[in-house]
Formats: sequence, structure tokens, C-alpha cells
Amino acid sequence: MEIARSLQNVPSSYIREILSAASDPSVISLAGGLPDPNTFPIELMRPTFEAMCDKPEVFQYGTTAGYAPLVNFLMDYYQLLQNHSAVICTGSQQGLDLVARAYINPGDTVVMEAPSYLGAMQVFGLVSASIVTVSQVDSGPNLEQLEACFKAHSPKMFYAVPDFHNPTGVCWSLETRKKVAELCIEYDVAFIEDAPYRELRFTGEVLPLVSTFCPDHSIVFRSFSKIASPGLRIGVVTGKKSYIDPIIKIKQGADLHSSIPMQAALLGLLKHPDFDEHLTNVKAIYKARYQTLHDALNDQLPASCTLNAVDGGMFIWVGIPQCDTFELARELLSKGVAVVPSPVFYPDAEGQPSALRLNFTNSSPEELVRAVEILSKELNRYC
Amino acid sequence: MEIARSLQNVPSSYIREILSAASDPSVISLAGGLPDPNTFPIELMRPTFEAMCDKPEVFQYGTTAGYAPLVNFLMDYYQLLQNHSAVICTGSQQGLDLVARAYINPGDTVVMEAPSYLGAMQVFGLVSASIVTVSQVDSGPNLEQLEACFKAHSPKMFYAVPDFHNPTGVCWSLETRKKVAELCIEYDVAFIEDAPYRELRFTGEVLPLVSTFCPDHSIVFRSFSKIASPGLRIGVVTGKKSYIDPIIKIKQGADLHSSIPMQAALLGLLKHPDFDEHLTNVKAIYKARYQTLHDALNDQLPASCTLNAVDGGMFIWVGIPQCDTFELARELLSKGVAVVPSPVFYPDAEGQPSALRLNFTNSSPEELVRAVEILSKELNRYC
Repeated sequence: MEIARSLQNVPSSYIREILSAASDPSVISLAGGLPDPNTFPIELMRPTFEAMCDKPEVFQYGTTAGYAPLVNFLMDYYQLLQNHSAVICTGSQQGLDLVARAYINPGDTVVMEAPSYLGAMQVFGLVSASIVTVSQVDSGPNLEQLEACFKAHSPKMFYAVPDFHNPTGVCWSLETRKKVAELCIEYDVAFIEDAPYRELRFTGEVLPLVSTFCPDHSIVFRSFSKIASPGLRIGVVTGKKSYIDPIIKIKQGADLHSSIPMQAALLGLLKHPDFDEHLTNVKAIYKARYQTLHDALNDQLPASCTLNAVDGGMFIWVGIPQCDTFELARELLSKGVAVVPSPVFYPDAEGQPSALRLNFTNSSPEELVRAVEILSKELNRYC
Repeated sequence: MEIARSLQNVPSSYIREILSAASDPSVISLAGGLPDPNTFPIELMRPTFEAMCDKPEVFQYGTTAGYAPLVNFLMDYYQLLQNHSAVICTGSQQGLDLVARAYINPGDTVVMEAPSYLGAMQVFGLVSASIVTVSQVDSGPNLEQLEACFKAHSPKMFYAVPDFHNPTGVCWSLETRKKVAELCIEYDVAFIEDAPYRELRFTGEVLPLVSTFCPDHSIVFRSFSKIASPGLRIGVVTGKKSYIDPIIKIKQGADLHSSIPMQAALLGLLKHPDFDEHLTNVKAIYKARYQTLHDALNDQLPASCTLNAVDGGMFIWVGIPQCDTFELARELLSKGVAVVPSPVFYPDAEGQPSALRLNFTNSSPEELVRAVEILSKELNRYC
């Protein structure tokens, strides 16, 4: 049976492929986007899991929008506006997929920063969107390019990760946030704000969501995979009700609703009095690892490489002299370090700047130091 | 933001709308397809839930195909062929959605029996399939029509529910199963076998899956919502590896993978030594309810109505004289009984035979008897 044309356009996720190669325990993997399982607040979830079987209602069919006690809690937790609503999804990845399916006709334009999150490129590729990219500077997207792009293409959506972007780690400045919101309102573009790393800020001050400045022109995606547990597969999508209702309609056909015991487990965790302390601990651990990786890279990388500081998230983006990054990644894997080469983060990989994405959340400080030794040696040979 | 054209074609599920109207506790609902929550094997799942927090691996990201211990168990449980594989989904509903997305281009023909399962019409509608229907007789689809349809339309798939069809309750005969498999092989049509009610047989002998006779031309969908718990949202899709791989590729973008603690909970249940006894008990309860509903209908329905016996499943399909079934359903709801009118089960509702779908699994015997009194009175007025 021949597969659908829309699937033929979508390459399999290189990251998931490299992850499987990197599962060899002798390999130090900086390739994935995995949180450290030792940080999972399992003990804070234990009371809910142990009492789950005393909540018979979580075992029956539920409503598509989500388990009402969790939805109500989140409306309050995020202080949603009165005309806004929420839908619980099977991870925020499902939310992205549903938004793409609810709104994009083949050929509709979606704007993204380049480089960009692979999982978003996949879902927009599946609905045959026309993806147009703008480049990124230290403070966020290049605003002149963005306005020119809005003018030229009348896009339906602008998808972005303003807090600790995947893969670059860039965090948008306050000015950029305000300006992007203005442009979205002016050109009637929906801002698709993906915020999976927002809670992982370990330096500096929290900035408002871009959506704060354009609440009726945006949809926000929150993940609990980095601060709770990815295995639960629970995320939430919020926005004005007229934006959320079509997403719920698609979700009804897509899976009826997400697992209710998982929604109850998340609710128990978020309400746990020690949850804030857990967040503080996770951020301290990741900050220390980031510092270790950053300092080691700073000491040992060839001068021809570039390295930006980040204030949070899970990744460091290392610019390297132009080369075959896939070949380099393969070489590094054979030496025991897994990394992700830059081309996979571009809708059009051809001729993009060479770089490597390094994850610092799921390796020990010793492993990070050892990985940088191997990486630097190899880069010194290459560059 | 304008919604996608594919979504504009999909009516919201009338069943879920009527379910919400029927949630008034004074209404006896024969409308939904809900199992009785009192039958959920919660005590058999309790040990797994209580020990969940001692399995840290279920909290990390997992592989898209599913939690390996569950996948391996199911390969053996269903005695899958060596060239076959499985993917765990967020309910079998997600499996249907993924198959539609993996294989159907807009305009591709999908054959279904009419009437048919609403959730399948939704997912095939979302990918803009051309749905062609064949009528149903007591032994399954009308085979002459089916062959003519295969000849005329060269469909990509034939979607069906051979065991205790939703909404009619029809169970295909052995001869029909063999003949359909032959036709699928001869005309190179993939048989999409949806089997959510298969384990709910309370009378007669278990018949082989249709797919047994065309294993390399079929994909099988199994649900655990009726025998375990729908709230878990776990189903499994099986078939030859080359059929399953594209489904996994779509699922990667759709939600990365399904909740792992839910997969572990299901595995614990299926391995529990008392699971078979649980199944026996559920079937005995549903058999008694079916008998109560069937006998009451048989006694009290006007002679102008038709009523078929079923050997399992969750529904009785009552043929009634041609009328405005939506108006009748509204009238019944105002009298305190919720039912589903036949047009919602047809891709083309216009001019279809009038009937009502009655669910017998989620009401007590007393409620079933009382519902039939109200229904018969109203039908006597109408017919």
C-alpha cells in the first residue's frame, strides 16, 4: 500500500535515529533533548499514583478538552484571560500537530526562525505548509526580515520558541517580544508560542510571554516534560476560545482525549507543596552542568568556533567552520560522543552554517568534560 | 484565523454532544458507547499503580512504537507472525487517525459498511478520503456489492468492524470473513480490521479475525477500553512491518509516543492471573443486560419496528418506521432517555433507513426496563 504523499515529504527524525545509535552505554550522548531522569519528581507524584485506584472517575472516558480538575487548575495557575480556554494534549508535540491540522491548508505559509525545532518542521511538513524562515540574532528573530516576510507572504502563523530556543538557546529580549507581538497584530498573523523550556531559566529575570502582548493573536504551548516527566505525555495548549475550539474538534478524531490518570498525576504534582522547591533544584543542577560544559568548551574549542552563553534551557549551539557536519557527527559517534549536526534544524539544509547542538541536561559533569575533550580534539583535526 | 478546509468537512460528533446533554443524572443514557465503570478491573491494576514510582524508566521519553515490555508481551499474546509488528497508540482511535494520515491522499477511496462507526468517518473525512459504502446483511457486508465496489473504485482500504459492529451489532459469519479476505487479496485492498468489541462475545463461538485469512493485506486495531479502562487511552495496531512503519513515522510527529505509565499499567493488568476471570465476569454482566434490554424491547416495541439479536458487543440497533429520528431523539431526551438516531452513522445521511442505536452496557437492568417503557410509548405515538 503506497504511503500518503504528505508523509513522503517528511524525513524521519535524525535525532531519534541518532538517539538509538547513542543508546550504547559507552557513548556520551549530548545529542538528545532528554531531561535527567534523576531530576524527575517521582517522590512528589508517589502519593497520587498510590491513590489513583481510589479515583474511579479517571478510568472512564472523559471530555476531549481534558480532565476538568486539571484544566481548572491550569486556568488559574496561568491566570488565563476570561475569553481564553485550554486543551490538554498528549505532550505539547500533539498540540503542535493539532494546530497544524486545524488551521493549515496545503500551501499556507508558516514562518519560523532558522534554525528551528525539528518536531515543528515535521508537523507543518505533514500538512504541506509552505515554510518560510527568518534568521535569528542574539535578541531573537531579525525583525526587519520578519516584517518583510509578513508583508510579502501574508503568513497564517509565526511559530517560535522565544525562551531558550531549540537548538540555539537564544532567549528573546523584551523589546523583541513587544515588537513581534505588534507585528503579529498589525499583519494579522497568529503567534504560535512554544514554551517547553520557559521554566528552565537559571540566570536572569523571567520575561513575559510574547503572547502577553498579543493575547488574542496567539496560541501558547506548555510542556511538563522538562519539569515533571516526559513519560506522562501531558502538555497544554491555551489561547482565545475561538482558537482552541477547532483544536478540540480535531483532537476528538485524533484520540478522543489524553490519558486521564496521567492528567491526575500531573495535577497532584503541580499542587504538591514541594513542587516549587523541586523546580529550584532542577534549575540549580542544570545551571551547574551548563557552566561545566560552557567553561570546558570555552577553554578547549579551536578559536575558529563560536559559542554563545545561555540563561536557561537545555542546549548550547556551537558554531564551527563550514564542513560536512554529518560526517563530523559520525566521526564523533565512533569516538564515543553523540551530537546533532546543524542541517537537521533547517527546512532547507543546503548551504546553512555549520554548527553542533550540544545537550547538557542528561550527562554528568564528568561526562560533559570528557565529551568536550573528544569534541575539541576532533574539531582541531577538522578545522 | 480561518480553520483548515479538511476540518470544515467534519461535523462535530453528535454522539459527544448528546453525551454532554445526557450527563444530567435524571436522564437514562443509552446513547454513549461507555462501558460500565463498575466493571473496570481497578483492583487488578492497583498493584501496578502502587508500584509505578519504583519503575523510573516509565517517566523518561520512550520509543515511538511503545513500551518494549508491553509490545513484546502483545506480540506473544496475539501470536503475531514473524514479519509483523505492533505500535501502541493513544487508544485505537489514534491508530485509525494515524492509518488514515499515513496512507490516504485526498480523493483516495475508502470502503466502509453503512451504517458505520462515526469516529472512523471522522478520521477518513479529515484526510478528505472519498468514502464509498456497501450495505450490510445479517452475515456482514453484502458481498456482491463489495466485489462490484472493489472493481469499480479500486479502493485503497476497506474499513470494517467484523465483531459486533458499531452501531448494528452484526457479527460476520465465517464464510463472509473468508470471502472478504479473498477479495482483499484479489483486488489488492488493505483490510482495516477494527476489533474493539471482539472480547465482548457473550454467546456462541469465537470466530477468527478476518485478517487471519489475509495477514499481509490487513491492519488490526485492538482496544483495551472495553475490557480494561478507556481512561488509560491505550490501543494497539498490528500488521506486517511494512504497513506499520509508516504509522510509526506519523506517530513520531503526532505525539512522540503514548504515555508510558499507562502502558505499564495495562501490561500489569494483562499479566494478572485474575484477568481472564475478570473478562468472564464482564461478559456475564453485559449478557444479562443485553437480555433485559432485548426482552423488554421484544415485548413492548410496536410491530412496525425491527430488532436483531446480537452475540456480543455493546449495542442493539432498532429499526423504526421512517421518521425524523433527530426530532424523535430530542423528544426522548425531554422524556428522560438518550439514544442515537441512525443518520449520524452514515457518511451520506440523506434518505437512510430510520433506526436508533441503544447501548446496554452502562445502565442498570432497572434503568434499561424503564428506558424501554418510555421509548415504546413514544414510538407508539410516532409510528
